[in-house]
Amino acid sequence: MEKEIQKKIDFKTKPRGSLGKLEKIALQIARIQKTMTPELKKPTILVFAGDHGLTEEGVSAFPKEVTYQMVMNFLGGGAAINVFCRQNDIRLKVVDAGVDFDFPSEFTLVHAKIERGTKNILKEPAMSVSICIQAIEKGREIVRQEVRKGCNIIGFGEMGIGNTSIASLLMHKYTGIDMEVCTGRGTGHDDAGLRRKTEVLKAASAKYSVTGPLEILATYGGLEIAMMCGAMLEAKAQGMIIMVDGFISSAAILTASMMDGTILDNAIFCHASAESGHQLMLEYLKVDPVINLGMRLGEGSGVAVVYPIINSAVSFLNEMASFEDAGVSNID
Amino acid sequence: MEKEIQKKIDFKTKPRGSLGKLEKIALQIARIQKTMTPELKKPTILVFAGDHGLTEEGVSAFPKEVTYQMVMNFLGGGAAINVFCRQNDIRLKVVDAGVDFDFPSEFTLVHAKIERGTKNILKEPAMSVSICIQAIEKGREIVRQEVRKGCNIIGFGEMGIGNTSIASLLMHKYTGIDMEVCTGRGTGHDDAGLRRKTEVLKAASAKYSVTGPLEILATYGGLEIAMMCGAMLEAKAQGMIIMVDGFISSAAILTASMMDGTILDNAIFCHASAESGHQLMLEYLKVDPVINLGMRLGEGSGVAVVYPIINSAVSFLNEMASFEDAGVSNID
Repeated sequence: MEKEIQKKIDFKTKPRGSLGKLEKIALQIARIQKTMTPELKKPTILVFAGDHGLTEEGVSAFPKEVTYQMVMNFLGGGAAINVFCRQNDIRLKVVDAGVDFDFPSEFTLVHAKIERGTKNILKEPAMSVSICIQAIEKGREIVRQEVRKGCNIIGFGEMGIGNTSIASLLMHKYTGIDMEVCTGRGTGHDDAGLRRKTEVLKAASAKYSVTGPLEILATYGGLEIAMMCGAMLEAKAQGMIIMVDGFISSAAILTASMMDGTILDNAIFCHASAESGHQLMLEYLKVDPVINLGMRLGEGSGVAVVYPIINSAVSFLNEMASFEDAGVSNID
Repeated sequence: MEKEIQKKIDFKTKPRGSLGKLEKIALQIARIQKTMTPELKKPTILVFAGDHGLTEEGVSAFPKEVTYQMVMNFLGGGAAINVFCRQNDIRLKVVDAGVDFDFPSEFTLVHAKIERGTKNILKEPAMSVSICIQAIEKGREIVRQEVRKGCNIIGFGEMGIGNTSIASLLMHKYTGIDMEVCTGRGTGHDDAGLRRKTEVLKAASAKYSVTGPLEILATYGGLEIAMMCGAMLEAKAQGMIIMVDGFISSAAILTASMMDGTILDNAIFCHASAESGHQLMLEYLKVDPVINLGMRLGEGSGVAVVYPIINSAVSFLNEMASFEDAGVSNID
C-alpha cells in the first residue's frame, strides 16, 4: 500500500519530490485512511478552555479573567480562531473544560466543566487522579460526537491563562529536559517576568516526585490539557487525522503518546510556535512541523491557518494528472 | 498611517506580535493599499511559458518538449497549479511568452509569443534588446488587462524547461555571487548532471561582458522571464500586491528591482524553494519568505499554496475584535 501511494505521488506531472512536504502529508493521510483517494470530511477544531490555580503566583502576563473573557470572544466570533475558521470553512467547537466562570447554559459552547479550574500546584496537586480520568473520558466522548457527525480530521486548540507554565512542567517531567529550557515567555513576559515564572516552575517541579503519565498530568494539570489528551487518544482510536497546534497542544499529545505509543502516526504538527520550548519538544518527538510563521497565540490558530496546506496535499493526490494521463514526457 | 495600522494590529484580542509573520504581511498590505481595511480582489496567477535554446546543451533533466506538453496540461486542468488555484479560488492565466510550439488560436491561453524560444546562448545572445523590450511591454499590457478586470493582487509563475539555468545566470550577473553557488539541480539533476550544467553556465557567463539590467536580460533570457519582469514592473506601477513564487520568479523580480528600486515594497515572497540558489537570492534581496515547504516545482505553485495565509493576514486585520470591542482585559 505504502509503495503504491508513493508511486501515485511520483507519477504526477511534476519532478519527483518537487512538492516537498505536501508529498509527505499526502502519503501520511493516505496511510491513515488506508486509501489511495483520501478525503477530508467536516474539518473541525476543538478549543478546550480551562483555568489554572497557579496564576495566583503571577506566572502569566495576563490576568486570569482573560480565560473566560476570551471564551466569550470566541462565542461572539471576534477572536483569531473565529476569523481563520470562517475563512477556511472549518467547524469550531469551544469546550468549557474547567473555566472559573458560569457560562449561561444557553450559550453555544460544549459545557464540559469538571471543576472551576485547577488548584494552585505550589500548594497541592492540580486535580485528583479521578478528576483527571473524568476529564480524559469527557474528551473522548466529545470526539465520538464529532465522529458521528462525519468528521474525520480534527484540530486541537486551547485557551487558559497560565497554561504555557503547565505545558512547560509536563514537558520537563516527560522528557527530562531542563526546566529552564522548557520555560518560555508565554503571552509576553519581559525578562523579570520570565525569571519569576522560571522560579515558580522549578519549585512546582521539585514539590512532587510523581511518575507515570496519568499521575504527572493530574498533578500539574490542567483540565483543558487532560480533556484534550483524552480527545486526541479517541481521535487516534477512531482513525482520524489529528492536527496539532502549538506548545500546549503539543504537550497534550506528548502526554497522550505516553499512553498510546502509536498516536503520532496520525498527527500533523501544523506549525512551530515562537514559544521557546516548542521547537525542542518537536525535536524530542522527532516530528517536523508543516510551517513556521512565528505565531504564538494558541486557540488552535496555527491549525486553522495551516489547514489549507493540508487540503492542498490531499487535492494534488486526488486531482493532478499523471505523466501518462497528460501525455507529458517523463525522465524515467 | 504606518503607526495607525500597527496600533490597530496591536489592539486586536491577542498578545502583541503573537500572529508573527501574519502581522507583518497585514502591515505591508495595508501600506501598499494605503488603507486600514485592505481588500484582496480577484487574486490571479499568471504563468509565463517559454523555451530556451540552451536546452541543446543538456542543461535540463527533462526534454524541451515538456514545456509545451505542460502548457497543454495547464490548459487541461491537470497540473499542480490548476489544482491549487481551484482549491483556493485563484484565477489562472497561462501566457505563451515564447514556446516553440503552435498552440491553436482557439486555446484559452494568452497568445503573446514573441519568438519560438530563445537562441542557444553558448552561440549567440538569447534575444535582441529590441525583442526583450517587446517582451517587457507585452508583460505590462497583460497586467493592465487584469487591472481593468478589478484584480489588485497578482502572482507570478512560469514554465520553461531550462529556465533554472537562466535564473542562475541572471542571479550571478546581477549579484556577483559565484556561478557555482548560483547553480542548482533544477528539476532533478544527479551529481554528473549538475557538474555538466555548471560547466555550461560558466561558459555562458564568460562569453559575454554585458552590463546593465536590460542588456543582461536580453543576453541570457528567457522570453518568459522578460515578460514576467515587465508584468511585475506594471503591477508595481499599478499599486498591486505582487506574489513571488520560487527561484525563477525571484530572478525576474531581481531583474525588475534593477529597473525600479521600489518594487520590493509591493512584493510578498511566498516561499523558499528547495532549489539551492533561492535562499541566497532571498538573502541578497534582504527579504523573508512566508514559508518553506521544500517545494521546487515552479508554475506559481508556491504562490497558490500560500495565498490562503496572505488572506488570513488581511482577514484578521479586518475581522478580529479589539480588546475594547470584546471586553477583554489587556496588559497595557
